[in-house]
Parts: sequence; C-alpha cells; structure tokens
Amino acid sequence: MAKLRNIKCIIAYEGTKYQGWQRLKNSGNTIQGKIEQVLARMVGEPIEIIGSGRTDAGVHARYQVCNFHTICQKPAKNIKDYMNKYLPEDIVVTEVQDVDDRFHSRFHAKDKVYKYRLWLGDYPPVFERKYVHVVVDRLNVHEMKDAARLLEGEHDFAGFSTGKTKKSTIRTIHSIDFKMNGNELIMTVTGNGFLYNMVRIIVGTLIDIGKESLGKEAIIQALETGKRSLAGERAPAKGLILHDVRYEVNKR
Amino acid sequence: MAKLRNIKCIIAYEGTKYQGWQRLKNSGNTIQGKIEQVLARMVGEPIEIIGSGRTDAGVHARYQVCNFHTICQKPAKNIKDYMNKYLPEDIVVTEVQDVDDRFHSRFHAKDKVYKYRLWLGDYPPVFERKYVHVVVDRLNVHEMKDAARLLEGEHDFAGFSTGKTKKSTIRTIHSIDFKMNGNELIMTVTGNGFLYNMVRIIVGTLIDIGKESLGKEAIIQALETGKRSLAGERAPAKGLILHDVRYEVNKR
Repeated sequence: MAKLRNIKCIIAYEGTKYQGWQRLKNSGNTIQGKIEQVLARMVGEPIEIIGSGRTDAGVHARYQVCNFHTICQKPAKNIKDYMNKYLPEDIVVTEVQDVDDRFHSRFHAKDKVYKYRLWLGDYPPVFERKYVHVVVDRLNVHEMKDAARLLEGEHDFAGFSTGKTKKSTIRTIHSIDFKMNGNELIMTVTGNGFLYNMVRIIVGTLIDIGKESLGKEAIIQALETGKRSLAGERAPAKGLILHDVRYEVNKR
Repeated sequence: MAKLRNIKCIIAYEGTKYQGWQRLKNSGNTIQGKIEQVLARMVGEPIEIIGSGRTDAGVHARYQVCNFHTICQKPAKNIKDYMNKYLPEDIVVTEVQDVDDRFHSRFHAKDKVYKYRLWLGDYPPVFERKYVHVVVDRLNVHEMKDAARLLEGEHDFAGFSTGKTKKSTIRTIHSIDFKMNGNELIMTVTGNGFLYNMVRIIVGTLIDIGKESLGKEAIIQALETGKRSLAGERAPAKGLILHDVRYEVNKR
C-alpha cells in the first residue's frame, strides 16, 4: 500500500466574494470548498484540507497555510500548477511542498500576523478599494497607539469576541504596530491566536478611540469584565488580511 | 447671464470593465459616458467633458485629467462629493477645481506618463492581478533596456501604432525607465503624446526582445519603415496605467 503523503500549501486569496475560509454544508462558496473541489478532481477521491485557522467572510489572506494527506504521486510543482490552473483567479497557490507526516497546519501554528489597512481620506483609493477601510473622520493616532499598548500581552479577550465558546478565551498579543504609508494607516497585529472576530473588534475599538468617541479605559473595562458591549465597533472585513502564519522551526 | 465656469477634474479608474475612456454611441459603458451621466444629473442639462486623451478598453488611469464648462454654481468640493457618491466604485474623482476659461485638457497637455507593470513569475499576485501582465518566460532585462534607448527621442512611430491616421505620427519619447520591485518590473514611458496602442506595442516589442524572440534591430526597422509587422506583439491592456498628465506651468 502506497504511503500517504502530507502536503503543505501556502494560499493567497481575495476574500471579497467568499463566505470565508471554512467549508459550509450547503454552499460551495468558501475558499476551503473551492480548494477541496480542485484537489478532489485532481486526485479522483475526496480530499479534506486542514487550514491554519478560519478567516471570516470578506477577509483576505496573503499567507494562509493548509495541508492534506493523499496517495497522489504527482510532483509538488505539478500539484501547484494544477491547482492554479483550475482555481478561480482570486485564489492563488504560491507554494506546495511535501512535509513531515506529523505536520498539522492548525495545531502547530505558533503565531499569526494580521494586517488591517485603513485609508484616511475623503475618497477611496480606486485600485486598493477592496482591501482598505475608508475612514473620513480625523483620527488621533497617538491615542490609538497608547490604547494599543493596553491590549498587548496575555489577556482574557472574551470582550473582544463574538459568539460563545466553552474553550479558553485567553490569548497573547505580542504586538500591535502602526505604520503610515501615504494616506494609509496599516495596523499589524501579531499574536499566538485569535478568537472569532477578535482582530476586527480590536481594530474597530482603536478606531473609535482614534475618533475620540471612546476612551482608552473602555479597553481596560472590556478586558476585565469580558463584556463585548464595552469594546468598540467591529471594523469591516475588507480591510483585514491574514499576513503570515508562523510555526516552530522544527514543525514545518 | 451667469458666466460659464471651467471645471477641471482629476480622475482615477480601474479600466477592467469599461470599453475605454471615450463615449461611444450605443453604449454607456465608457468612463467618459459614466462621468457625463453623473454630471448631467447633477446640473440638469447635458454636459460634455474633454479628456486629456483616450485610454483603450481595459486600460487604467491613476491620473486622468478632464474639464467641462457649466453654469452650475455648486462649490468645487460639493461637485467632487456628488460625483464620488454617484459614480461606480471603479471610477474615483480625486480633485475638482475651477480653472482659467481657456484651459483645455487635451490641447494643453504637454507630456504624459504611462506605467506598464509586468509580473515575472509562474503565478499572478492575487491582489494586483487586474493591474499586471504576468510573464512566465525569463526576460533579459539588460537587452530590454538597451533596446528602449532606441525608442527615446523624436521618431515617426507609425510602425508602433494600429489604425490609420492622416495626422502626423511623429512623437517624442522623453524616457523609458525600468524599475524592479520584488517580482515586478515596472516600465515608465514618458512622452509628449502617444498614438493609438503605441505604449502597448512598445512594451510588447520590448517583452519580445527580453524573451529574445526578437532582436533590437526590429525597432530600428519598424521606426524606419513604419511597418507595424516589424514591431513586436501588443501587450495586454490590463498592465497599462495612465500615471500622469503634465501641463505647462501657466496652463492649468
């Protein structure tokens, strides 16, 4: 019997048209679903891929990681070419490689990096319009940076999430960095894991603080009480992009 | 009787869905057509706009200039906001201002700058896929730069154009610059004017020379004889963007 290969793929996608990463029962319109369809067609049997994590409807990825097990004997390069030939143009496979049997895209992910792009101006940038959130109000970026410091470190982020879970809501945010690039304010959030909607609620809260419609103490209160209502608005999906997934050096 | 104002607009657009800049008789699907529709609605009478020049179907613009005359008394800022509110999201007005009566977007344009973006790689960049032309073959960029020198200066560019004209086909190219940015090769072509398809045929010819399927002498021959067949292929519209239009300092 042929040994099962474990194949790791790096995927980039524009999330605009999709209902998110995760396959849904009654809809093929997910990124996972599209990829599995193409792989099943290539291999001639159903394939289930494991993603490093879900991205919501409308969220993009520059660097999403997934892996799958298969008896397929095609060289990695041919798998990549096949996938790119049959996937829609808003999903691109940038790398395919054989990895250790035990590699698991989700369990072994150590850190994730998300970027959120804000466009500060009274009209959107036409070529980037699907990847930025336009903010017309003036933002106090100094206040936003100060407030971001309160979120760094290990906290219970229940107040910065939607949906209920019985699992732990404790996560560690390593850093929230700010960079201005012309009219664009790019926020980079790095952490060991993120709850449902967590990055978007963090960014939305910081925007509210930048608009001075919310004070920094809201962050402290939302962290302490776990009440979603104390944090700010959830920022739109379109500005968010999964930028990187990092693994232990010996787990790849 | 109210004095007619002369209003200048700077427009950015993604050309993907349009049949080009110029209004066509039986189709509203042009950029000029879309803008004129919105202005007519705003002013309550037909408006004809003058563009700095046409762009072909599928070609983009970062900085297109147009002007129009109107009795409308709205402040420039309100005109801009109205236009951006009612124009489709792939056309954005970045500036609106009152200018001298005599300003004419086309007649007074002194130089134009086009950029052409090539993506060198075996898969397209997902977020930029509508704005780059993917070239899988290896390019000899050194040869392309050498060949570009032959096109700079004043020449009869009849061989680098399609369609017939009774007008002069002599133009001056000030420079063709090359810049590598990651996997991207950006060619910037600056000149005092361009014939129909001229930038795309120049870029396509340079690509053919980069692939070494065409020699540099083809440029000399196409310039000398005016024969289109001696130049290279026409590069696709999607990689081309009107980057800037320059006017005499006293004509704006």
